[in-house]
This record gives sequence, structure tokens and C-alpha cells, in this order.
Amino acid sequence: MSLPSALLETLSHRLGPRGLLTEGGDLAPYLKEQRGRLTSRAHAVARPDTTETCAAVVRLCAEAGVAIVPQGGNTGLVGGAVAGEGELVLSLDRMTRIRTIDPLNFTLTCDAGCLLAEVQSAATHMGRLFPLSLAAEGSCRIGGVLSTNAGGVGVLRYGPARDLCLGLEVVLPDGRIWDGLRALGKDNTGYALRHLFIGAEGTLGIITGAVLKLFPAPRETATAFCALDALPRVVDLLALARERGGDTVTAFEVLPRMGLEAAIAHLPDGRDPLEAPHPWYALVEMTSARADGGLTELLTATLAEALERGIIADATVAASQDQAASLWALRECLSDAQKPLGGSIKHDVSVPTAQVPAFIEAASAAVLRAMPGIRPCPFGHLGDGNIHFNLTQPEGMDTGAFLDRWAEMNRIVHDIATAMGGSISAEHGIGLFKVEDLARHKGPVEMDMMRAIKAALDPRNTFNPGKILPTA
Amino acid sequence: MSLPSALLETLSHRLGPRGLLTEGGDLAPYLKEQRGRLTSRAHAVARPDTTETCAAVVRLCAEAGVAIVPQGGNTGLVGGAVAGEGELVLSLDRMTRIRTIDPLNFTLTCDAGCLLAEVQSAATHMGRLFPLSLAAEGSCRIGGVLSTNAGGVGVLRYGPARDLCLGLEVVLPDGRIWDGLRALGKDNTGYALRHLFIGAEGTLGIITGAVLKLFPAPRETATAFCALDALPRVVDLLALARERGGDTVTAFEVLPRMGLEAAIAHLPDGRDPLEAPHPWYALVEMTSARADGGLTELLTATLAEALERGIIADATVAASQDQAASLWALRECLSDAQKPLGGSIKHDVSVPTAQVPAFIEAASAAVLRAMPGIRPCPFGHLGDGNIHFNLTQPEGMDTGAFLDRWAEMNRIVHDIATAMGGSISAEHGIGLFKVEDLARHKGPVEMDMMRAIKAALDPRNTFNPGKILPTA
Repeated sequence: MSLPSALLETLSHRLGPRGLLTEGGDLAPYLKEQRGRLTSRAHAVARPDTTETCAAVVRLCAEAGVAIVPQGGNTGLVGGAVAGEGELVLSLDRMTRIRTIDPLNFTLTCDAGCLLAEVQSAATHMGRLFPLSLAAEGSCRIGGVLSTNAGGVGVLRYGPARDLCLGLEVVLPDGRIWDGLRALGKDNTGYALRHLFIGAEGTLGIITGAVLKLFPAPRETATAFCALDALPRVVDLLALARERGGDTVTAFEVLPRMGLEAAIAHLPDGRDPLEAPHPWYALVEMTSARADGGLTELLTATLAEALERGIIADATVAASQDQAASLWALRECLSDAQKPLGGSIKHDVSVPTAQVPAFIEAASAAVLRAMPGIRPCPFGHLGDGNIHFNLTQPEGMDTGAFLDRWAEMNRIVHDIATAMGGSISAEHGIGLFKVEDLARHKGPVEMDMMRAIKAALDPRNTFNPGKILPTA
Repeated sequence: MSLPSALLETLSHRLGPRGLLTEGGDLAPYLKEQRGRLTSRAHAVARPDTTETCAAVVRLCAEAGVAIVPQGGNTGLVGGAVAGEGELVLSLDRMTRIRTIDPLNFTLTCDAGCLLAEVQSAATHMGRLFPLSLAAEGSCRIGGVLSTNAGGVGVLRYGPARDLCLGLEVVLPDGRIWDGLRALGKDNTGYALRHLFIGAEGTLGIITGAVLKLFPAPRETATAFCALDALPRVVDLLALARERGGDTVTAFEVLPRMGLEAAIAHLPDGRDPLEAPHPWYALVEMTSARADGGLTELLTATLAEALERGIIADATVAASQDQAASLWALRECLSDAQKPLGGSIKHDVSVPTAQVPAFIEAASAAVLRAMPGIRPCPFGHLGDGNIHFNLTQPEGMDTGAFLDRWAEMNRIVHDIATAMGGSISAEHGIGLFKVEDLARHKGPVEMDMMRAIKAALDPRNTFNPGKILPTA
């Protein structure tokens, strides 16, 4: 089923040649699915350059009964921007204006199509910080970041995208524009509509603009790489770091020996930052806007206390920005570093932070029971209880045969996370790939509420149908 | 219209003698309306002691078609807990268990009926901080705090109640229980339902339990009282304090000379902290979990820089906790201190922080044009752009005649706030008193969405009907 030709003609007229793509080569980047599991089937991509044009496209599609798949940078990992037959992709990639920056108000207002990196850099130029940072920041767009409530490495201190947004502009399924671009620290006038659209993955509205919160620029950073002989101690280390450092603790990542070894092998100048091998590592970062120094001393003293109390076995504090960057590289390359080891079945789960060690232990044992030789490589944002519980294939196993057991492994891991009060998608969302998982892990009460909200705001199910909730 | 006697009998049987109140003396505290503008008309108050009992009450009322007004500490200021004829008040005041505290997870799970002060103190006993703090903390309850998204003096650093809640347990209008008591730092599995209930003032569900975020306990506090000769400089002072102090800036309050004079007259040991009078003052508080000191020096250096740059005219930094408490007393007594000056017409507005001076100037001029001699006494949470724009009556005017012009003054002030992208209710919510204002200041798109959500989750309009949205 392709799109009605009358609609395409009207859209082409309204959007101009750059605004409507229908040729294969032009379409390719919009149809790509990052995990390589699916191909998007859209025959056209609409690229409005203003909110009003976006609303016009939505109205035209509503009249024609055509469903719309909103798309930011198309960097999502759960198929949330994949279009089905007869659906139109609506890309925000021509709406890239930073509308205003107000450093005294600590806010920035921008089009939804701005790249995350552009927003970061615009804030930096004004002496401010936009703290959201993640691997795809050079290609993901603010509308997608908000629609998926993206996380990254600064969530412990600054919260996810949701916490960094004060106001939204949204095109609704009937083509009306909601101007909720408020730049207010406090506003208790009715229901929290912006929080409904944030994280809704384009199923309730298309975010076209946002007011983002800025912070004072950090003036000092201290980074340490710590070794632990027992995983449960990592929770004590986090608590101690927060007790001693408070808000300065901005990132707290964990990785296993296997991950460190893969990273060392992967990086051209990779080397073990510590002398002896240890089973677990934590990367701790403190930052502060204060100019009166003392952060490195604070981190060093905190780690000395941790060593004395038997919480850590060893640690090194970066003596320069270069050293800090080398430590971070070990963490940041982990997804790539695991590739030479063979197939990897991935999970994006969270549990209460204090439960992470118990979760890793239980889930590792369970997958090993189901598949002897499987190599769990759990790493990630311990500060948020969010672990990328990656499973590397057993040595020598056929990769295809291993990956065929993706759903089985997911089920084992997700059941354990759910039993611990956890989430089956801490960062990446539900999209298309986790729709069935969601229904399985949420109770009927919550599913009913979500369906009721979807029906209330998108009664004809024309916005990203089949994402988050199955199309009935 | 009183309640059906069959329902009362069943409720009495289910709830026991302490669980259902029907006598005038017993009912009085639940029927009181804090502003004294209305009297609640409920003939009965149900006081369930568990979530299951609360759900049973809701089911019984749903069957009988009786509307429910949920109530926490009944400390709200907009009539949100006032019941109409034939409505049942459901008080959470017997659900007061702290269910669990997990200091390693930095979370506390409690019944909705816990007093805010009890939660603060339970956290403190575990070496943690629950940062929400407001005047009614000794009598307001967590369910009400969340249902109204309460603010207070720490919002600048910690956010309002919404930002301090990770999970909720809610009884829905059909009597089902939603167990959303998650203690997760990250969770991207579908719509943000908890954010719908937070701030919904009991119109969508009854919050019966919550998971709250805790923070490291502060180890050091520095407090200063600053004088400014020009109001616009207060925004520069806030920006400078945040640039130099970052996250340590936890409170930033502003008050005019008139407010300080009223406070000095009101307090038994009230005195001007500074030598000469100045038109505007800012109270700045920095706190830190760090034990390595330097906060008083940081604040002193920041204020020296502000003095040198002409941002402030004078300042004093508290040399002891007692001195800090005296400075805070000047701010905290302001509502009471204004009473001897006569009638006061109140506003709870916010604008973007950087716009506060322009707002105060424009709104003061406008009300003076409408009523010569009126005395604006704007004060409050400048750090959040939230000003309690109180108007004291002209000297010698009849108080009744002055208060009769409440709606007229509200309209003038709210129109100016709205034109600046502000809110007509930054802290207190909509309740009953601001329902008409809300409809006037929100566009039709937003009102339509709110009505659609209310209809989706409470189709029979039995939960706090007429609050936030008018009953059709």
C-alpha cells in the first residue's frame, strides 16, 4: 500500500522539492533501522521547516487517513521511528533553529530538529551547561531526545531529558498546535501535559519545539577509576561518594573485568589503569561550578576512606584532562569493544540502585543455566540502577544460532528485573521491539490507563501506530 | 442532599467507628477551608487505614454514584479539598506508615497520609535529606504534597514535589489499585502516568503511597542577607551566585523594604540586619554535603564580587546558625507580618526568572493605577520566578471594600503574568478558586486536552468534581 497520489501531490506543493522525499536514495537514511532488524517501508518522507508547515502536513494526512511516523535523528534502538506500509515519515531535520538563549534565565528554546550537540555547544558559548550527553549526541535531535526521555551519563545528577525540559510545543493528531513553550521554574495550572508527550515516542503528538533548562558551567572536574573485589561494594562506594561529595557526583559507571579487557584490546592506546586485575571497576566523576578548587582532593580523600574501609581494592585519580579522557574512553568504547567477541544479546534494564549487584548475580546465573558458556558483560550507569546487561556468545558458538535465542534470554533477564521492581527498558523506550514485552511486564491496570490516554489524545491512532501499544 | 444511608451503613461497617465520621464536631477540621472563603458541605468523612480499604470505599461510592473529595492535611489554599453537597470526604490521615527507607538507594516509601515533617525527620535519622520544605510541613501530608505538586524554598536546587517522587500507588475512580511504586532512577516503559497524578489535585486518582527521592544530608550551610538598590540587579545576583556556587545555591528569596519593615515590627526580636535602609533584599542560602568546608568563604567572596560590580549595595553573611535562623525568620514571617497592615489580596504567580523585575514593576504600576494607595508587597522564591505578589490595602480604606475588589486585582495581575509567559498559579494549584481563571488563561487546545484526559481516567467525574476543570 503506497500513499494516495493526491496527498503526495498536495504535500509536494506545500513542502517544496527539499521538503518531500520520494526517491530511494533520498529515503535511505530515513528508512534505516539502527539494530538492523527491520526495514522501514515508507514511500515518502515529509520534512517541514516550520511548526505551521508541520501542522499542515498533519492536517492533510488526517484528512487522508494516513498515519505518521515522526522522526528525529533516527538513532533510536527499539524501532520507534520505523514506518509501516502506507505510513508517512515526518522528519524534523529541517527544523534546526535555536530560537532563544537566555543565560540569566538559564533556559534555551529551540526547534525539535536541533542536534543535541548543537544545543550543548550553544549553551557552552553562553557560559552555561546543557548536561544531557550520550553516544549519539552528534546525530540525535532534541525532539527525539525528549520523545524517548533519553538518559546518558549525567542522569545521576541532572536527571533524564524529562527533568531538563520546562516547556514544549507540540503538533497534535488533529493538526492543532499546543503552545506549551513555558520557561517557568514553577507552574501548577492543571495536568502535566508536557510530561505526557515526553517519553511517548511520538504516539501522542509531534514535539516541534522545547524550552530546555541550562545549568552553570562546570569549572572543575575530577575523575577516578576504582577497582572492587566484590560487586556489592560498588553500592557502598556510590553512597560514600554522594555522602562526601553530594551534588558533585555527576557520573558513576560500572564495568566488569571482561569489559575492561575488551576495551583495552579495542583501543589503540588501551592499557589497564591499575596494576593488578580486579573483577569489577567503577568510573567516578565529580564536577563543580565552584572555582575555589578542592575537587581532586575531595575525590582522593573519599577514595582513601573507601580503601581504608575495604570498599575498594585500588584506585587511580586522573591527574590531567587527558588522563580523564583515557579513563572515559575505556567505558565509552564498551559497545564497540564487545563486537570482536561475537554476537551480543542486549538488555537495557534498571532496578533500584541498591539492588544492582543482586540483579547482576541472579541474572548472570540464570542465563548461564540456560546457556552454558554465555558471557555476561554487564556495564553502565550504576548511579541510576541502569545496567546494559549485554550477553556475549559462548566461545566457538555459531553467532546466528546464538542470536536466535535473543527472545529467550530477554525473557529470563526481564523476568528477574521485573521481580526486583525493575524496568525492562530503562533508557531506550519501547518502540516496536518491546511492545509485547511491555504488555507482559505491566499489569492490566497500567495498560488500561495507557490505552485510555492514547485513545483520548489520538482517537484515530494515526500517530506512530503500533509503537508502545499494539494496534488493536 | 446528604449521602445515601445504605452507603453510610456499609461504610461504617467496613471502616469502623474511627474510620467514618459523621458528627459535627468530628467533621469540623475536615470541613475547614484555609482561606475562610467557603465551608465544605460534606456530611461524612471516610478515613481508611489501608490502600485496600481505600479502594473498597471508592468502589462502594462508585456503585452508589457518590463523588469523593480526597484530602491530605487540608492545608491547601485554593479550596481543592472542599466538598460539595452529597460528596464524601476521603481523608488519608490514618494512613501514616513509613513503609521502608533504603539509605543506599536514597529512597523512602510511605503511605500518602504521612506528614511531610515526619518524612523529613525519618530521612534525617538515616543520614539523608528529603529536601521539600514549606510552611505547612507540620500538618500537610505527602499525598496532598504530591497531588498539588508543592514547592517551597528548595525548588531552585531540588525541584518541586514532582521531581522528588519516583513512584506512586494510586486508587483509580473505578476502585482498582495501580501499583506504580517503583524506586527507579530510569524507566522508559510507556507513558509517564505518575506525572499525570502528581499535580492533578485528586481529580484523576487518590494517591495512597509514594516512593520519594532522598539526598545526601547537607553538612554545611551559608546564609546571607543582601541589599539591592535596584530590583533588576537581583537577577544578576542570582546568576552570579549560581555561576560561582553552582549546585550549592539552594534558596534565593526576595523581599521589599516594606516587607522587611513589617517583619521587624512583627518579630519580638526583629531588627534590620543591615545599617541603612534599601528598597530590595535577597536572602541567599548555600548548602553542601561536602565536609571540606569553604562555603562561608565562597558566599563571602561571591558577595564581595557582587558589591564590587555594583550588583548589591550591602550584605551580611550569617556567622552562626542562630544568625542564619534570624535572617530566615524575616522571610518566613512575611505572610503573618502583613496582617496588621490590613486586608491583603494575594497572588501566586510565576514568570521566567529573568522577567521577575519587569513583572513586579508592570504589575505594581497597574494595580496602583486601578487603586491609588494600594501597597504591593511582592516577595518569594525569585530563584524559581515565583512571586507571592501580595497587595496590602491602602491606609485607612475599609478592609471589606478592599477585599471586594479581589477578583478585579487578580485579573489585572494575572493578565500581566500571562502576557509574560507566566503562570497564574505557580505553587498552590487551581482547586475550586481558580477554575474560571484557568479557563481564561489557558488556550482551548490545552483545555481540550485536559478535559479529554479527565474523561479518559474519570469518565463519571466522581473524583474531586469541579476542581481544576468545571463540571460541565
